[in-house]
Amino acid sequence: MSDCSKPVRDLACYIGAGKGKMIRPGLVLLSGLSCGGITKEHIRAGGIVEMIHNATLLHDDVVDEGATRRGAATLNHLRGNESAVLLGDFLLSRVFRLCVELDTKAAETIASAAVRTCEGELRQTAERGNRRLSESQYLEIIIEKTAALFSGACSLGAMLAGGNGRQVKMLADYGRNTGIAFQITDDLLDLTGDEAGTGKPVGNDLERGKLTLPLIHFFNSAGKKEKATAIKWISSRRTNAKRAMVSLAKMLREHGSIEYAQRRAEEFVKRAIVSLGGIKNGDGKDALIETARFVAGRTV
Amino acid sequence: MSDCSKPVRDLACYIGAGKGKMIRPGLVLLSGLSCGGITKEHIRAGGIVEMIHNATLLHDDVVDEGATRRGAATLNHLRGNESAVLLGDFLLSRVFRLCVELDTKAAETIASAAVRTCEGELRQTAERGNRRLSESQYLEIIIEKTAALFSGACSLGAMLAGGNGRQVKMLADYGRNTGIAFQITDDLLDLTGDEAGTGKPVGNDLERGKLTLPLIHFFNSAGKKEKATAIKWISSRRTNAKRAMVSLAKMLREHGSIEYAQRRAEEFVKRAIVSLGGIKNGDGKDALIETARFVAGRTV
Repeated sequence: MSDCSKPVRDLACYIGAGKGKMIRPGLVLLSGLSCGGITKEHIRAGGIVEMIHNATLLHDDVVDEGATRRGAATLNHLRGNESAVLLGDFLLSRVFRLCVELDTKAAETIASAAVRTCEGELRQTAERGNRRLSESQYLEIIIEKTAALFSGACSLGAMLAGGNGRQVKMLADYGRNTGIAFQITDDLLDLTGDEAGTGKPVGNDLERGKLTLPLIHFFNSAGKKEKATAIKWISSRRTNAKRAMVSLAKMLREHGSIEYAQRRAEEFVKRAIVSLGGIKNGDGKDALIETARFVAGRTV
Repeated sequence: MSDCSKPVRDLACYIGAGKGKMIRPGLVLLSGLSCGGITKEHIRAGGIVEMIHNATLLHDDVVDEGATRRGAATLNHLRGNESAVLLGDFLLSRVFRLCVELDTKAAETIASAAVRTCEGELRQTAERGNRRLSESQYLEIIIEKTAALFSGACSLGAMLAGGNGRQVKMLADYGRNTGIAFQITDDLLDLTGDEAGTGKPVGNDLERGKLTLPLIHFFNSAGKKEKATAIKWISSRRTNAKRAMVSLAKMLREHGSIEYAQRRAEEFVKRAIVSLGGIKNGDGKDALIETARFVAGRTV
């Protein structure tokens, strides 16, 4: 960002200060390693993928009116929605500019992942407050909004390492399944997580009317009385947030809905690992397997 | 947008319903016409440039909390900031995807214009409330936030028509100067325009602390007492907006600041026309000259 104007640099430092997990650029590199080796192009592509992710975080925080992220105050909270919207746009435009220098296939992979991410976000918004959202609709949304970028990152890594069509496809499948597991876990942490660990407040999805997997399972299998009690806790969130969240999480746990979502996340981890079947054994593959296991087991 | 999901189509129809002036795609086509002819690629590029413009309008309305645009309620007003932010991102991502199919030079031109537009917007935000903004700082900002896309649209049109380096440069200069004249006029209309004509409320720039050319001229040349009166009118906008705007515009007019800004816009129109000196006479060039005159003389 050294070639940027001062106002841009002043804002961009807020992004650099956050401690992200850097999973997406990590996937670009590990996918490269597992398919032949890491090149300079991988570093650039990893940066591009993380920039897209950061742009979506900036805009998500505007959309969700989020005040904390990665354990620190969000840019929209500190400097207003304006700066957060514009800095996100700036990052997307820079991504776009950087992609011009990549080969067409790589640029197309990144651009398509960005489009799908936005489509997923828009679809999620359209479904807000829909208590009848099915598990398959939920999966369709997270495949777009989260797993498309994971999948794009992995196929990009394979492609830039000179991987053949079969390898690129395997890595794309691995990335998609890992992305699904990541998002199911993220949504679980919004219900059961610890703010000190996740760096963002719990219950945010509920606040914004987003139905996630544990609640979908609960609403599909609980009795009338149980559902009414859960709705009562959800509604009482505004007056006593902590108590409502603890009671709701307890109820979901007792009903088996938390365990169900965890099991589903683990199933997608298994699918991710199976996707790597044809990839040569080695450090790259081992680290990809570890990463898939990490995303479903994490508490941060 | 026929290949988009329903939530995207539902929102995208709000953009299609607005009656924009379509100046930017018009410039792509006319620049093509003036340098050899219009191709299918020009139609695609015109669409891309208008999509970038629409994305910035959607996000501007979130940033400015604008409630009306092009004579109709804004998307953020009708469907919330969330939809406006996400639809803008979706448009930018689609632009990015469409550019992959253009040749590298064309894609680079569009991407660079998008980056500069964002940089200009960020710089404008950083300068909000700065009553000491100079004319040259103001020009630097509008060259980025507005004229870069005008210039990009024109050089793209020339490039896609097979224009040589000299022609592309001439069209880029024409576009930049026309873009500056356009923005100065846009800012004038925010002070003196008629909401029924412009389709957006007057005084929005003042409301958001943006200093534009007439006020910069006024603050640089008025006496202490006059300045104090102007500041009083600006501050009283919240209690009696219409009266404050009429009084302020009258004051700026009497001081010669409105006329000064109009003169400056016309100077840039002249420069735009001079830039076309080496372009072959014909319908394309005539229409570009007309367009430059229109942007500075318009009341809408």
